[in-house]
Amino acid sequence: MPEQSPLEPAEGDPFGPHNLPYGVFSPAAEPDRRRVGVRIGDHVLDAGAAARALGSPYVALLDRPSLNPLMAAGRTAWRDVRRALTAWVTVPAHRPDIEPLLHPLGSVTLHLPYEVADYVDFYASEHHATNVGRIFRPDGEALTPNWKHLPIGYHGRAGTVVVSGTEVTRPSGQRKGPADPAPVFGPSTKLDIEAEVAFVVGTPSARGRGVELASFRDHVFGLSLLNDWSARDIQAWEYVPLGPFLGKSFATSVSAWVTPLEALDAARVAPPARSTGLLPYLDDADEEEPGGFDLRISVALNGEVISEPPFSTMYWTAAQQLTHMTVNGASLRTGDVFASGTVSGAAREQRGCLLELTWNGTEPLELGAGKRTFLEDGDVVTLTAWAPGPDGTRVGLGEVTGRVLPG
Amino acid sequence: MPEQSPLEPAEGDPFGPHNLPYGVFSPAAEPDRRRVGVRIGDHVLDAGAAARALGSPYVALLDRPSLNPLMAAGRTAWRDVRRALTAWVTVPAHRPDIEPLLHPLGSVTLHLPYEVADYVDFYASEHHATNVGRIFRPDGEALTPNWKHLPIGYHGRAGTVVVSGTEVTRPSGQRKGPADPAPVFGPSTKLDIEAEVAFVVGTPSARGRGVELASFRDHVFGLSLLNDWSARDIQAWEYVPLGPFLGKSFATSVSAWVTPLEALDAARVAPPARSTGLLPYLDDADEEEPGGFDLRISVALNGEVISEPPFSTMYWTAAQQLTHMTVNGASLRTGDVFASGTVSGAAREQRGCLLELTWNGTEPLELGAGKRTFLEDGDVVTLTAWAPGPDGTRVGLGEVTGRVLPG
Repeated sequence: MPEQSPLEPAEGDPFGPHNLPYGVFSPAAEPDRRRVGVRIGDHVLDAGAAARALGSPYVALLDRPSLNPLMAAGRTAWRDVRRALTAWVTVPAHRPDIEPLLHPLGSVTLHLPYEVADYVDFYASEHHATNVGRIFRPDGEALTPNWKHLPIGYHGRAGTVVVSGTEVTRPSGQRKGPADPAPVFGPSTKLDIEAEVAFVVGTPSARGRGVELASFRDHVFGLSLLNDWSARDIQAWEYVPLGPFLGKSFATSVSAWVTPLEALDAARVAPPARSTGLLPYLDDADEEEPGGFDLRISVALNGEVISEPPFSTMYWTAAQQLTHMTVNGASLRTGDVFASGTVSGAAREQRGCLLELTWNGTEPLELGAGKRTFLEDGDVVTLTAWAPGPDGTRVGLGEVTGRVLPG
Repeated sequence: MPEQSPLEPAEGDPFGPHNLPYGVFSPAAEPDRRRVGVRIGDHVLDAGAAARALGSPYVALLDRPSLNPLMAAGRTAWRDVRRALTAWVTVPAHRPDIEPLLHPLGSVTLHLPYEVADYVDFYASEHHATNVGRIFRPDGEALTPNWKHLPIGYHGRAGTVVVSGTEVTRPSGQRKGPADPAPVFGPSTKLDIEAEVAFVVGTPSARGRGVELASFRDHVFGLSLLNDWSARDIQAWEYVPLGPFLGKSFATSVSAWVTPLEALDAARVAPPARSTGLLPYLDDADEEEPGGFDLRISVALNGEVISEPPFSTMYWTAAQQLTHMTVNGASLRTGDVFASGTVSGAAREQRGCLLELTWNGTEPLELGAGKRTFLEDGDVVTLTAWAPGPDGTRVGLGEVTGRVLPG
């Protein structure tokens, strides 16, 4: 019986030829030579080498150490390159050329796949914002008055966006409990995660010109999972009046794999009904394409699933976020990343961070590894997700994982 | 009588050979060839060409289209390159080689001199923070409880940092007055400036390791003026709870000239006495070098001076900001920029933004161009500054200027 080709993943594999996410890898033998890879099943195709072997004109976009040139090439190029890749991994005649260029996933090092330009984090889940409001402002309205009128966001630190697998040192900083006379300094005692989805900008935009809702696909190259590590004690003391800073800036983990938007065409869904009228620039009622994505996220702590946040419940869509972010004339650059904010559904077991899951530590989780309020040293957090694909398939998103090191 | 050499600026010129700020320029004849320039008087020296002409080993740092390679080279290189440049522009024997490489300032185009990595904006003036608190929270404490314990800061948009001279389009966005039933959309009606000083990071730092106060000079390459354009109406509606976003992200103007820290050795001064004890990592009482800079800033609106903010009054120093920004393990990259926040002194005529100068528009300025509360289309704002230099000289900072275009 002939060996199974890596080009024929098992039926139901969420990384089959209908998916084809992009990453950047280096093989064990050449650790310093980064190159664009495309995932198929449990293998990585050296995409630049494939382009070369098949005489493709896309060598210039694929034989590169980062995704930025491909991302900058624009929507038509994204479509054409994806078509070519689909042919390379599915047409039997290409097998003799392609199979030798496949590396087992376990044998390669995966790198941050693009150079991050600006990183923006939104706050787009109504369930999350409501829970956080109830926890921190129990006597006030859960949502601030602006919440239903605009997607609230802020800039984060691009320089500490790291690839999945990177270990995260527990940050130190100032914290002050309500009863403390003065702040104290030390390693965070409330280290948390935030399960999010990140959108990666390919095509830049000009300063002074906004990007309309309908132009979302012209600018956004793809998406991935993101873990916005958060030190709640540091954040609580520092964030008034200018927002989160050191409580977030120590590390933000993104997947090594960027899923192209085209792979998620079957996962587009309408966002929840809006309870408040929107200003015209944000009103997506008449958009041709539904703004949501039906991504089913899973959060595991030391291998145990602690939450399954449904991305389809997000109140604000990525298109609305992109439009809002640029409506003041702010320009986009290739490599800009904007994230959704914590994804939380209505149910307790759909909450995307420990702050909500344990109600700020007052309701510990009972896990195989013991009780958990916030993260302990050595904890490993892993986000995974899938979405409905064409013809009953599932499209997997690349995982985001990270282990906590002592501070 | 022989013509005056451009290498001999008039006595008292704040851009004499004691200053030598760095920039990036292109001559009119070669608009696409950017190269490092050093300002002397009203001329720009093509520094890479000079290094080549004199057989200097610094060609690799200076014959470049941006300051990043020099900035990344580290403190010893910064000192050595500055020594070499000082010799090139002062030793008479070099004149035949150097004079042909000088371009009149008016004949060149000045560019953003470095690639901005992350941009952070602080809030370090007690007078400014107090005024803003009084304006926006008249019934509460002017300063938030954390203000005297840590330098409050937030990340801004690196991709919209522009060089002095760039025109700034009035941003549009949402605003909502207290009496409005719902937000409205349109061009900002409260466009403002913020006179600030920006510090530019040269030497990177590792993730997970903080930068101590005493290491300030090992990481910071130089400083420049910065205008943090601000739309107060957009900011007021959006900023709770995650801080300023679109009210700031449309444009931030920096000078074309970066003044090396060494040029400001005579301008170091102690910061104001601290009224609250500091945690050890921020306590600079025993630091060898005083943390402040005696920079005298001038803000002109359409040529008329409207304020003279003294940078020596800043409560938090740049060294404290750098240390705080990294104490959680956040790493630094070459090209990181962190700004002071609005510089305001104690007196009304020392306030660094129109919000304070006009008390949120309730006390208009009477100017030659008419009354001003906030900026009108066509207004030109120019920041300049000088600092005490060696032997009674003045060290000029490169100006930041920008004109407002209609939205």
